[in-house]
Amino acid sequence: MKIFSSLAIAAVALAASVPAMAQFQKPEDAVKYRKAAFTVMGAHVARIGAMANGRVPFDAAAVAENAALMETMSKLPWAGFGPGTDKGDTRAKAEIWTEQAKFTAGAEKMQAEVAKLNVAAKTGNLDAVKTAFGAVGQSCKACHDVYRKD
Amino acid sequence: MKIFSSLAIAAVALAASVPAMAQFQKPEDAVKYRKAAFTVMGAHVARIGAMANGRVPFDAAAVAENAALMETMSKLPWAGFGPGTDKGDTRAKAEIWTEQAKFTAGAEKMQAEVAKLNVAAKTGNLDAVKTAFGAVGQSCKACHDVYRKD
Repeated sequence: MKIFSSLAIAAVALAASVPAMAQFQKPEDAVKYRKAAFTVMGAHVARIGAMANGRVPFDAAAVAENAALMETMSKLPWAGFGPGTDKGDTRAKAEIWTEQAKFTAGAEKMQAEVAKLNVAAKTGNLDAVKTAFGAVGQSCKACHDVYRKD
Repeated sequence: MKIFSSLAIAAVALAASVPAMAQFQKPEDAVKYRKAAFTVMGAHVARIGAMANGRVPFDAAAVAENAALMETMSKLPWAGFGPGTDKGDTRAKAEIWTEQAKFTAGAEKMQAEVAKLNVAAKTGNLDAVKTAFGAVGQSCKACHDVYRKD
């Protein structure tokens, strides 16, 4: 019964940790999904980055629109890092699955910084956007440096 | 002056048709972006589809969450179909750029049906979700049949 209980607990824990919306037929689908979510997010990061860095004129409405999309997208990729998704066409390092608590903490840090950027974006203040955008960039880099292959 | 005026009008028309958030460094970036947006949307379509088709138990909260994401995602790919994005790693047919009004009408139809699904999803009524989901599927298929290579 001890083994059965452990399995039951593990099954419940797994079900609880996977959002209802995140279900994939195959591990490859999960890998493709998480990469796509990062690609979409990256395009909107770049759009704000161009304004934060002065390469494109500041447009408060565009910043707000892109920051809102970033916040939505920032929540999505993580569902694609489930068991069995450490293989295939991916730059994800094996440490993601051996250091899950640390990886999850990094993912949550990024989402928190993106949420702050979305708040800053709504103020329409360029300096606030620049500060928040810098923190987002650091939170992206922190995980990329450790958990993504070159 | 006639040529100059035509160019000026064309430039204004182009600027007006491209949302502020949709700017890409290279055509390849636009192609990658639109494919990624469709990939993310497709995963959420599939999640609702599994419930609409009875393969997965109906979960009203999950339907609502996925439908809201679908509505957000449904607006994104179109920015990636600009001039010069008919080449490269894409299944998009040339007709997209020679029949732009028809393609845009199809894109708008899909967005309208997804918006209706999002309304239906909030009711928590499975039959309403099924009906709206069927219309979404038809709007997807209508463009895929004509504008996407097998």
